[in-house]
Amino acid sequence: MLLRIDHVGIACRSLEAAIDRYVSVFGFSVTAEETNVEQGVREAMLATESGDSYVQLLEPLSDDTAVGRFIARRGEGIHHVGYAVTDVTAALAEIGQAGVRLIDSRPRHGSMGASIAFLHPGDLGGVLTELVQPLRVHEM
Amino acid sequence: MLLRIDHVGIACRSLEAAIDRYVSVFGFSVTAEETNVEQGVREAMLATESGDSYVQLLEPLSDDTAVGRFIARRGEGIHHVGYAVTDVTAALAEIGQAGVRLIDSRPRHGSMGASIAFLHPGDLGGVLTELVQPLRVHEM
Repeated sequence: MLLRIDHVGIACRSLEAAIDRYVSVFGFSVTAEETNVEQGVREAMLATESGDSYVQLLEPLSDDTAVGRFIARRGEGIHHVGYAVTDVTAALAEIGQAGVRLIDSRPRHGSMGASIAFLHPGDLGGVLTELVQPLRVHEM
Repeated sequence: MLLRIDHVGIACRSLEAAIDRYVSVFGFSVTAEETNVEQGVREAMLATESGDSYVQLLEPLSDDTAVGRFIARRGEGIHHVGYAVTDVTAALAEIGQAGVRLIDSRPRHGSMGASIAFLHPGDLGGVLTELVQPLRVHEM
């Protein structure tokens, strides 16, 4: 069901400082940068050399957002992991039947035009887990 | 420098329970299972369908280990992220010159015969980061 690790989402206080670090230390370049008001973040996607997995840097839009509360509680660091799937709706149905609570019962808009959904960390050993159905090129 | 996300390392209290969860919810199978005394863990590697990225489940051998202390402090959850590199020694030299403290100044033995090294989270926005030079098949 899970094709590959699509990305790790990393919570940071300053998107600019985090981008600078990943560019200067690892030679990344920024693939996409956007604001997702619904999720309360400004974010940047940095592709690895393979081009099929990403570092997602997340700066909260305010303290009163999921990522803002994460940083207040635990500091900066890894916030979630995202796995690529072929069909996020089908995957959600299967995972829900396995007894995992779904944060999103239906897909919503994610980075770079993907359809995404989050699964509840309370049923997955403390791991906030995201499903990602990437936008296919012919849909762009 | 970083080819792809090789794995996410997930700290769990019970390796058996964590394996059961990933098998029953996501349909994973266990690629490898081993004990690494030096790192103080029992672990399992579960491959995604692409075969080139893994979930690494880590159970501490005792409370007085890095993963044991992590769980005591933060609970179960994502412990680190590992990136595949072509040459871990060359990558360490480059990253060290960029001013990041190296937990391992020389590669050591990791999962499935890989050469690995950890970078200090204090210089990487709270993210414990691992470099992984996978064992090439002709070396097996």
